[in-house]
Amino acid sequence: MVKLAVVGATGVVGRKILDVLDRRGVEIDDLTLFSSSRSAGRELVFKDQPLTVRELTDQAAQEGFDYVLMSAGSSVSDQFAPIFEASGAIVIDNSSRFRNEDDMDLVVPGVNQAKLNRHIIANPNCSTIQSVVPLKILDEAYQVTRVAYTTYQAVSGSGKAGLEDLANGPEGTPPKAYPYPIYNNVLPHIDQFLPDGYTKEEQKMIDETQKILGKDIPTTATCARVPVSDGHSVHINVSLDQPTDVASIQALFDQDPRVVLRDQPDQEIYPQALEAAGSDDIYVGRIRSDATLSNTFHIWCTADNLLKGAALNTVQILEEVMKSRG
Amino acid sequence: MVKLAVVGATGVVGRKILDVLDRRGVEIDDLTLFSSSRSAGRELVFKDQPLTVRELTDQAAQEGFDYVLMSAGSSVSDQFAPIFEASGAIVIDNSSRFRNEDDMDLVVPGVNQAKLNRHIIANPNCSTIQSVVPLKILDEAYQVTRVAYTTYQAVSGSGKAGLEDLANGPEGTPPKAYPYPIYNNVLPHIDQFLPDGYTKEEQKMIDETQKILGKDIPTTATCARVPVSDGHSVHINVSLDQPTDVASIQALFDQDPRVVLRDQPDQEIYPQALEAAGSDDIYVGRIRSDATLSNTFHIWCTADNLLKGAALNTVQILEEVMKSRG
Repeated sequence: MVKLAVVGATGVVGRKILDVLDRRGVEIDDLTLFSSSRSAGRELVFKDQPLTVRELTDQAAQEGFDYVLMSAGSSVSDQFAPIFEASGAIVIDNSSRFRNEDDMDLVVPGVNQAKLNRHIIANPNCSTIQSVVPLKILDEAYQVTRVAYTTYQAVSGSGKAGLEDLANGPEGTPPKAYPYPIYNNVLPHIDQFLPDGYTKEEQKMIDETQKILGKDIPTTATCARVPVSDGHSVHINVSLDQPTDVASIQALFDQDPRVVLRDQPDQEIYPQALEAAGSDDIYVGRIRSDATLSNTFHIWCTADNLLKGAALNTVQILEEVMKSRG
Repeated sequence: MVKLAVVGATGVVGRKILDVLDRRGVEIDDLTLFSSSRSAGRELVFKDQPLTVRELTDQAAQEGFDYVLMSAGSSVSDQFAPIFEASGAIVIDNSSRFRNEDDMDLVVPGVNQAKLNRHIIANPNCSTIQSVVPLKILDEAYQVTRVAYTTYQAVSGSGKAGLEDLANGPEGTPPKAYPYPIYNNVLPHIDQFLPDGYTKEEQKMIDETQKILGKDIPTTATCARVPVSDGHSVHINVSLDQPTDVASIQALFDQDPRVVLRDQPDQEIYPQALEAAGSDDIYVGRIRSDATLSNTFHIWCTADNLLKGAALNTVQILEEVMKSRG
């Protein structure tokens, strides 16, 4: 008997979570959908059954859920995740609220495992998830000694408001998700600015990479929003502890089921945001030696920010936890 | 008496060159417009005067031009630039054909000057031009010891075909400028692939940066096309020979008329492609320390790829040469 709740069910990621739960055949006996009071009362369909979305309240959070998948932003997670946890649930949270807490897990299945000191597991930032998978593969074969990210992030990472801002085009109403139009623009600005000039998004990529890989690897990041609906592209510049070559790294990725290699430049084959959109896979390619630093390589990496970057990773964490608990 | 020709006058850059010549009040007594046979016979307006575009032939190239601004691709430059030169003209060429020739100039006004060993001056690659200006400012105050570029390049860099591919959206005919759709996509592929996996665009940025700055600075590049009409964004990661700080670099840029500083994160002010589009300026901002390497900084740099990246820089070279010849 599995009693599961999805919080933020009407949002962009919440709906994707329902899709992924359905198509992966996760066994759920009792599914409850929660949202804000604004969306409560709406009907969503899961496995051909209509379900009425309920408002999340303190009382509702104590109805004895086994698992709760939260995707409603940091303030909702801050308020309700501890209540779910106290009532016996395992919470898998998509917000950034608990990612940096020392006693909480931050998990990418295939890269690291939940320790479950607390019964809240954080799902990492979208651009981090897709990036740490190829980095983990490299770190298993060599040692990763430095990482520099430059990102090209899709607007669906900002939910419906981001998609609407892009769709509104040049004639749009004032932007909702961003301080400036994203149509025909590139915004080197994701999440709030910190005093040192980095954005929170950049700092998240740095902190989460170190936490997930379990090593204080020197890491830097520059994050930008591009006018693309779905699919993040990340340029990863990675330094290793020993000499190797492009062909060896290509072979490593080619043999590893955790990533899909797209790297045949002579046939114009390389990872694309458009191919990643709607796919469960993480694509890597354009692997080249960076001659300005020793044992350093360029990698281009794409994935669907709503799937592997959010909903799929959340459900994969759920599957692992369900399996470990029998 | 200044007799000037514009080759490729009906193209995206050619038309911008006419705009820039007009608005900057360059003194021209006799203007001839050339194009391919396909566009010959069309009429363009310059300073309210209609001008019929002529087909460029060997004979036409020997009509005694003082200056020729070429923007019709490498093969046209290869064929006609030497003929113009032999007939006494100074040629300023927008193609990549002559950029790497040792005896030919590659010029960004404000950064380096033409030596005129040959009377062909190459205009650098669009993404290089905007990047070497802030790098030159840093290299004057410190010494630049390493450069890593990651670009977000607009489709107008591919001319009309690129703009049409983007405008065609998801329903478009098969793409013309690119092997894949650019709408809703990011393509880590500009120009042809070389055997080492780099693209020609990336290699151009590396070679041209070294040539223009006059130093073999270790440089690497990763170039990507984004679904933006006009305005290139370049992430520049730059290492210096000595310690400094973000505030000092900001002050340096703020005081220098060659760039415009947009760097007030607390007010959400940073360089944007959309602000650069249509502007003559080079914008720099998001200056941050990169803690993974010593004396290293992140800079975000935007400019209009058709103006400072092409037409404006061409006309600025013309102005300098006209001035030096009195």
